[in-house]
Amino acid sequence: MGLFSKDIKTMNDLFVHQLQDIYYAEKQLVKALPNMADKATDKQLKDGFLKHLEETKTHVQRLEQVFQMQGLAVKAVDCPAIDGIIKEADEVAGEVADKAVLDAALINAAQAAEHYEIVRYGSLIAWARQLGRSDCASILQKTLDEEKTTDQKLTSLAEGKVNLRAAS
Amino acid sequence: MGLFSKDIKTMNDLFVHQLQDIYYAEKQLVKALPNMADKATDKQLKDGFLKHLEETKTHVQRLEQVFQMQGLAVKAVDCPAIDGIIKEADEVAGEVADKAVLDAALINAAQAAEHYEIVRYGSLIAWARQLGRSDCASILQKTLDEEKTTDQKLTSLAEGKVNLRAAS
Repeated sequence: MGLFSKDIKTMNDLFVHQLQDIYYAEKQLVKALPNMADKATDKQLKDGFLKHLEETKTHVQRLEQVFQMQGLAVKAVDCPAIDGIIKEADEVAGEVADKAVLDAALINAAQAAEHYEIVRYGSLIAWARQLGRSDCASILQKTLDEEKTTDQKLTSLAEGKVNLRAAS
Repeated sequence: MGLFSKDIKTMNDLFVHQLQDIYYAEKQLVKALPNMADKATDKQLKDGFLKHLEETKTHVQRLEQVFQMQGLAVKAVDCPAIDGIIKEADEVAGEVADKAVLDAALINAAQAAEHYEIVRYGSLIAWARQLGRSDCASILQKTLDEEKTTDQKLTSLAEGKVNLRAAS
């Protein structure tokens, strides 16, 4: 879709645009997560990033399935938000000298990405239901549930261990 | 803090960096919210953005108070994440032809910003407590509570009215 061309005329157009946006975001996260796993020191955090990488690959496939169910070609549009979130994660990680503090920063960065996805999937599911596509909503809901679980696990890991170590 | 200079050596440094990051983000949102209120058609949404603008100005002041409590000069650092979120909001809004659909897109954009803040304040509060600064944590908690309330109100408005109108 072109800038200023007012290509989004219906809610279905908005749904498709958002689908293309989150598809781009998930693919960027597939590239970013191995990097985050490499940087993590805490084993549980490192393993968590690698597990979420596998989940993220499934999220990409689920989106491809939804494109197909909508009779659409799979397409990504630029998503400046996820680019900004990943850029900020890289910049902050590059500034941290202490490994335990870096783990805390990595969790914070990962949670920014999780919450971005939680918002986008939340809207996509609401819009799909409104558009009478509860079949698409059900597939997207599986991903949303996994994003929320990952976010909660990151909070537990931060508050149960990583922050304590980083502050000591 | 300079890139690659590894200026973040302790959790307190990370806390201060994140404080400077969210301070920048809140100030960018003070600039962006009047624009979003202008674009909104639904009166409740427009009023909601204007009310949140006033809250956001208070969030800026609370951050200035926390800088002061830490004995620090008030400072902002670039936050590519919020820049990306706002850029994406502008781009999508510029592509929507229908006013009811635009309201749905604006809510989604605002929720991306809210969730970014929810993550950052969540970490700041956890880190402040870990660092023995529950006084700072209490101030930041007030803002976090307001961000969460705003996010919930946006969801209710979308699901109760705006999405229905956008899909019709």
